[in-house]
Amino acid sequence: MSQTIQKTDVVIIGAGPTGLFSVFQCGMLGMKAHVIDALEATGGQCTALYPEKPIYDIPGFPTVAAAELIEHLEQQAAPFDPAYHLDQQVCGLTQQSDNTWRVTTTKDTVIDCKAVIIAAGAGAFGPNRPPLDGLERFEGKSVFYLVKRREDFRDKTVVIAGGGDSAVDWAMSLPQVAKKVYVVHRRDKFRAAPESVARMRALAETDKVEMVVPYQLHGLEGTDGKLSSVIVKDLQGNERALEADILLPFYGLATDLGPIAGWGFELERNHILVNPATCETKQSGIYAIGDVATYENKLKLILCGFSEAAMAAHAIHPRVFPDQELHFQYSTSQGVPGE
Amino acid sequence: MSQTIQKTDVVIIGAGPTGLFSVFQCGMLGMKAHVIDALEATGGQCTALYPEKPIYDIPGFPTVAAAELIEHLEQQAAPFDPAYHLDQQVCGLTQQSDNTWRVTTTKDTVIDCKAVIIAAGAGAFGPNRPPLDGLERFEGKSVFYLVKRREDFRDKTVVIAGGGDSAVDWAMSLPQVAKKVYVVHRRDKFRAAPESVARMRALAETDKVEMVVPYQLHGLEGTDGKLSSVIVKDLQGNERALEADILLPFYGLATDLGPIAGWGFELERNHILVNPATCETKQSGIYAIGDVATYENKLKLILCGFSEAAMAAHAIHPRVFPDQELHFQYSTSQGVPGE
Repeated sequence: MSQTIQKTDVVIIGAGPTGLFSVFQCGMLGMKAHVIDALEATGGQCTALYPEKPIYDIPGFPTVAAAELIEHLEQQAAPFDPAYHLDQQVCGLTQQSDNTWRVTTTKDTVIDCKAVIIAAGAGAFGPNRPPLDGLERFEGKSVFYLVKRREDFRDKTVVIAGGGDSAVDWAMSLPQVAKKVYVVHRRDKFRAAPESVARMRALAETDKVEMVVPYQLHGLEGTDGKLSSVIVKDLQGNERALEADILLPFYGLATDLGPIAGWGFELERNHILVNPATCETKQSGIYAIGDVATYENKLKLILCGFSEAAMAAHAIHPRVFPDQELHFQYSTSQGVPGE
Repeated sequence: MSQTIQKTDVVIIGAGPTGLFSVFQCGMLGMKAHVIDALEATGGQCTALYPEKPIYDIPGFPTVAAAELIEHLEQQAAPFDPAYHLDQQVCGLTQQSDNTWRVTTTKDTVIDCKAVIIAAGAGAFGPNRPPLDGLERFEGKSVFYLVKRREDFRDKTVVIAGGGDSAVDWAMSLPQVAKKVYVVHRRDKFRAAPESVARMRALAETDKVEMVVPYQLHGLEGTDGKLSSVIVKDLQGNERALEADILLPFYGLATDLGPIAGWGFELERNHILVNPATCETKQSGIYAIGDVATYENKLKLILCGFSEAAMAAHAIHPRVFPDQELHFQYSTSQGVPGE
């Protein structure tokens, strides 16, 4: 198999807020960037976990929805024309003989670059999957870990599994379109706002919602990815088959640094130790910023990640332009491309 | 004279962007703040020097006018109800026996606090004033260092002094309302955009504008602050009296750390050295952030000042609440007052 090797100045791992702002900061210093992310869209946790949650501590925004912040950051990075490689994880990072780095991903993207910025947040993350035989056959067809469009579940019988906010919130909302909603939880206590739990329980007085507690998921039945029943079991081992079209397991998200953890960094509780003056890791040419990075008194705030992006970009500049002295310029004097 | 001594948690010196964001950051950690600034308005250089200039590197703002950024930051700080002491400079900073600090200003404001954040930018700044006898009698009446409302000069005869952008820009603009505009400069070369200089020279072909070059300001005549003539002198000592109502000296701005420089900090080229992990100075309880502060690889970017504000606020927290452990919270969970 022949591989196309792409070349750029800086590879940024993670398309969350600090990764996106790194594109801008590198761009302001004349450096091109490629961005890799495990998710299908940019924004990291901001868009995947809490797109509509208001954030209050982004300087200059008394309040901003997480997804809106991401849109702004993407727009701010756009003049520098970054290449995005989404829906793929970095699986290889090797230093070349000329001190550049080669980055490879699970989709066989290969990029050679002069420096890498790891802005991987809590790492690649995904849903906690229930341990059910044959689960993968149903995933994406009858089993979903998030609701993209409520309308997709119109007139369906839906099994919601879990006891947290997502489970309770959708148990309140889905009955408006679904034929019937089962809520399966291993105990009768829910970890969600008491008011929401009360509303869910009120709905359970109707035919639309049925609480199946204390029960756990036990198996799936159906063919060709099309679910016919969800089998649940109580603590005494009694089974029950719920006739259903859809299963929504809401068991939270798991995060995983993945191969990053094995790349020879100095780690502290799953965070990469960096020099706070440059954000450089123990590996020369590899920088880490945002939630994945740590140093003395590190604050896990998006606004601090922005500052770290600026420091990393300035520290990387002499690697990309070894013969060019960096004259500090204010953005007000310099402008951005296309302005 | 009896003095009212005010008390607060944190005194912030400087109401520029990083000072304002410090109010917010302190507020998020439950700490009250007072803000002192030498200027009459908040915003520091952003509002005083370049209110309409677009800034491109504030994260989340592809572009924002300096004054608009300040408005947002003030709005973001407002829920925490800061006290502003404007139009006054800090002239005293003394440590009390209980390790708190007493801050006094040129307007006899006295504030006791547990910590001080110096966010003084380039220091208190003001116009370079021409060395003319009796100048102060005319200042604010016939002599102005900036144009607040062009309309104020309708039908007046105005002397503009200087050779930079401000002088040239106003020499182009004021003739639209003024009766006559003289431009006094010590040489016939101007430090401004060539296009603007050409437009000014074109106007000088009309009766509205007269170039008085190479001349320098020499004296002022008039009574009760009302100007009658501006005396100018050429290099050979020849004097000329320009009948005029208004003098606008545009000789740039001078910055001055003022008494701050004498407070026992470790200084590096007029900047205060801080511990980058806390932003604390050599003086325990005194922190410095933004352009006035320096450390290894310091970047003079507003966005880095924001991050420093967060670090200082977190470092100050145990001084204000010695018995209370700080549990890190995201703003999305915590919210702000009034939300």
